[in-house]
Amino acid sequence: MIKKRIKILREKFKNFHIDGYIIPKNDEFFSEYAKNDRLKNISNFTGSAGLAIILKKNNYLFVDGRYTIQAHNESVSNFKIIEIHKNMPHSIIKNCTLGFDPHLFTTDKLKRYFSSDIKLVSIGENLIDKIYKNKPIKVKPFFSLSKIITGESHQSKIKKIMHFLKLHNADFLFISAPQNVAWILNIRGHDNPTSPIPNSRLIIGKNKELFLIADKKNTHKIVKERKIKKNQLIDFCDFKELISGLKGSRFIIDNQSCSVFAEKIINSRFKIINKEDPVYKLKSIKNYSEIKHMINAHKIDGLALTKFIYWIKNINNKNITEVDAQNKLEKFRKMDSRYLFPSFNTIAGSGSNGAIVHYRATKLNTKKINKDDIFLCDSGGQYKYGTTDVTRTLCFSKPKQYIKDIFTKVLKGHIAVALTNLNKNNTGKKIDVHARKFLKKDGLDYAHGTGHGVGFFLNVHEGPQSISKYNSIKIEKGMILSNEPGFYKKNHFGIRIENLLYVKQKNNSLYFENLTLAPIEKDLINYNLLNEIEKDYLFKYHLNIYTEYSNLLNKKERKWLASLI
Amino acid sequence: MIKKRIKILREKFKNFHIDGYIIPKNDEFFSEYAKNDRLKNISNFTGSAGLAIILKKNNYLFVDGRYTIQAHNESVSNFKIIEIHKNMPHSIIKNCTLGFDPHLFTTDKLKRYFSSDIKLVSIGENLIDKIYKNKPIKVKPFFSLSKIITGESHQSKIKKIMHFLKLHNADFLFISAPQNVAWILNIRGHDNPTSPIPNSRLIIGKNKELFLIADKKNTHKIVKERKIKKNQLIDFCDFKELISGLKGSRFIIDNQSCSVFAEKIINSRFKIINKEDPVYKLKSIKNYSEIKHMINAHKIDGLALTKFIYWIKNINNKNITEVDAQNKLEKFRKMDSRYLFPSFNTIAGSGSNGAIVHYRATKLNTKKINKDDIFLCDSGGQYKYGTTDVTRTLCFSKPKQYIKDIFTKVLKGHIAVALTNLNKNNTGKKIDVHARKFLKKDGLDYAHGTGHGVGFFLNVHEGPQSISKYNSIKIEKGMILSNEPGFYKKNHFGIRIENLLYVKQKNNSLYFENLTLAPIEKDLINYNLLNEIEKDYLFKYHLNIYTEYSNLLNKKERKWLASLI
Repeated sequence: MIKKRIKILREKFKNFHIDGYIIPKNDEFFSEYAKNDRLKNISNFTGSAGLAIILKKNNYLFVDGRYTIQAHNESVSNFKIIEIHKNMPHSIIKNCTLGFDPHLFTTDKLKRYFSSDIKLVSIGENLIDKIYKNKPIKVKPFFSLSKIITGESHQSKIKKIMHFLKLHNADFLFISAPQNVAWILNIRGHDNPTSPIPNSRLIIGKNKELFLIADKKNTHKIVKERKIKKNQLIDFCDFKELISGLKGSRFIIDNQSCSVFAEKIINSRFKIINKEDPVYKLKSIKNYSEIKHMINAHKIDGLALTKFIYWIKNINNKNITEVDAQNKLEKFRKMDSRYLFPSFNTIAGSGSNGAIVHYRATKLNTKKINKDDIFLCDSGGQYKYGTTDVTRTLCFSKPKQYIKDIFTKVLKGHIAVALTNLNKNNTGKKIDVHARKFLKKDGLDYAHGTGHGVGFFLNVHEGPQSISKYNSIKIEKGMILSNEPGFYKKNHFGIRIENLLYVKQKNNSLYFENLTLAPIEKDLINYNLLNEIEKDYLFKYHLNIYTEYSNLLNKKERKWLASLI
Repeated sequence: MIKKRIKILREKFKNFHIDGYIIPKNDEFFSEYAKNDRLKNISNFTGSAGLAIILKKNNYLFVDGRYTIQAHNESVSNFKIIEIHKNMPHSIIKNCTLGFDPHLFTTDKLKRYFSSDIKLVSIGENLIDKIYKNKPIKVKPFFSLSKIITGESHQSKIKKIMHFLKLHNADFLFISAPQNVAWILNIRGHDNPTSPIPNSRLIIGKNKELFLIADKKNTHKIVKERKIKKNQLIDFCDFKELISGLKGSRFIIDNQSCSVFAEKIINSRFKIINKEDPVYKLKSIKNYSEIKHMINAHKIDGLALTKFIYWIKNINNKNITEVDAQNKLEKFRKMDSRYLFPSFNTIAGSGSNGAIVHYRATKLNTKKINKDDIFLCDSGGQYKYGTTDVTRTLCFSKPKQYIKDIFTKVLKGHIAVALTNLNKNNTGKKIDVHARKFLKKDGLDYAHGTGHGVGFFLNVHEGPQSISKYNSIKIEKGMILSNEPGFYKKNHFGIRIENLLYVKQKNNSLYFENLTLAPIEKDLINYNLLNEIEKDYLFKYHLNIYTEYSNLLNKKERKWLASLI
């Protein structure tokens, strides 16, 4: 099937005078998880990031280190698999003419991937869509969130953007990332499988001009409630006409998500100023309402997790699979009507699968959960209203001492992050050191960041803040971050302990508070390695869970939960 | 009936060679609310504090200022009603011989009430009980609270007492207050209508001696679980024998609750040292577990209150009475199985009844709630596990402007207390000033303290801390206090806004957090009198309630609650 599609694609090269065609993972909204997955349609690769180049004779699939094994499994019969950070496309593909869809690339990305010996030809219609297109998604309209939920009116947010424009002496801002449109207008949509993203773009002018660029089929609700007037509503196909009617000289775009297509149109009438969309920073600082709703979402999520952990620790003799486990967790989440859908694809890996950082168990590859293996489960939910992300590593029999010791060192790092004195260590790169220091003493480490920013009822991954070796964004009150140190031994086991944290301030003192409420595997802890502060942390952490849920659990669950304190 | 009882009592005077007999409100455990109410049995007076003296010809009923009106209503046909702080018994009753029950008086109290011209005769058997005795209370055994609930083992608490004894060079401590026995042993009982008090006393020795003095019928559960060994268990009647068998020289008693009877027995073998029982202070500082459970109890209570407030604001056209209102509130509380019983008698007063600080509506005196009157409702519950106390003042039609203004000033005081910078103002007497300052600007005030300490699943009133003009106890992390400024216009209306607070500490910064979650009457607020900080406080306060309960309310309730934010 893939072979056939590649053949049809190659037949089109002549018409466009190209030697090859580039297919990225992202869709035209540069979302983390796109519904129309053209890369999968042409390569069979299902990872969350990658780039295919189909040439007349050879095909290349560029993926990052997380996905090389998976790409081999899924695509090696038709593609040469290249690890992208070791070999960029420009080091392999030279002196030819490549076609690309200008809606799917930013100028920036093209420059990074290809050098000047490649001639790039912009082709307006997507060639993969002409061969195979995912079923059109059922139209579900955008909807508004009330001020009780968002804590700030869209008018107030728009005013902030107008100040930003005036500060930078610009006439317009092009908000090309739908997650940022969602934040500004306090709207959400159904255009992403794991995030309530409303696929749309927005233009805000310094004189209060406002244009929402979206599929009109999606907008009747927000028009009805007068959030957007009809004349502020522009269809995707009318973008060029809109721009040509605007008056002014300077236009700010963000080259992370402004497509080549849009940039060209804007550039034909305006001087382009490249700047990070200010919404990224603004929305990273959650207000009181957003935090309250996030706390609430985590209370709902934590109950499902607690019941799940009890269940899996007690059912395990029945030989369930990874997929059984993730389905059961989903069932527990669905018990509350405020649960909507997963905030990302669950990673449920037993034993050696736990060592694959982005492992995804499917019906075809799922493995039985061995009683003697440890089991890593990373999952999250989108709730009315909030987004969760949590990892627990569990065991079902007496674990080996060295695994307990490593788990305990990961836990010590996790606790050190949670107890960070943010008045002293106020950047992700400083905090990251503390997360790793206990493992490092033994020469151990993990090959991912310690934490990412998290959206409010939006993407589970968002910036600009993170806990990682290179992030020097100041951690501020209202930010939400994950705290997820780990350790992975290839072909053996994986350990990760992940909570979400939010930054609280009281009398000028800044500190983290846990959002996540889910028991931490006591059977994997070597208490001799913990000091009194760490023991007290765990005592309070589990007591919080107990007081929150004891009345909502059955007798057996409650008894077990009490035993953890 | 009362007349007859008095007659029978007087007939007994000859046998004991007395001219009169003193009947206090308290029982032999000096509890705030006793089940065997001898004062009521001989005088018909039902208030919570008072003292009757029956002489051969005259009868006196001494009550404090709160109860003079009530005492007149209930007892004036047989008693002269005397306001005790204006006229102490010794200023009225002179040169005679009075009998008293040594189990019901402390040496201290007798000294305060009577001067040396009165001869006091201790009579071991209670004369009122011989005439009329309340039905014996059904025996319900003491029960233990687990460490998850109390946060500290009884062994650890006993050790603290042993340190206290060594510090004061004493051999024994007599813990005569059952609330303090409850705290030390982590037990509770059923011996008080509004508090899970286990009627008992305790002796702890510096060498780990431990004796529980209690009715053996109540103790089988705690003996079975080996909290108390059989040989540590002493019946009330064996107290003298116990004391005579103890070795040592110095015995600490607390003259707030050590009866004349017990003091005499101890004094016959030991040197008596009068000291405040250290448990009062120890138990005022709630630990992490106790606070967590109190937070939980308030979450349960707040849902009932929120539903009640919605109900009464919307049902009021149907002309309900004060008693209907308090019964309905009780019904809402009973909807959660963790609710046990009221933590004190509900005060539900409409209009002028709201001005009676300790008003109690009963079937006989209850008044219809007038739509145009404001309605004061002060109530609380005992929960598994925690104690609540909350007052809200509500209106049902557009209130008069001057009432709104006064309510708003009371509210400003209430908010000022909640936002106290405890690093600066760390005593009740300093905080009390802030609670009153807005009323004082208009020459207004209220004749009660601003806040009392609150027990953990124990008495709703406990010391030693309070927010009042004279209290200079340092406010410490873990203390729980009420915050209840008010204003009362006699024969017109009463206003009180009461939340419970606990003291939290983060990075050396000490501050109050609200425990109580119940909407504050927006219709009584004049927003023009509030500054931005106060408005923000109310916004956050109501948002907390909304996120906590929105999923547990019906649509109408939810919509109303959202409208408060």
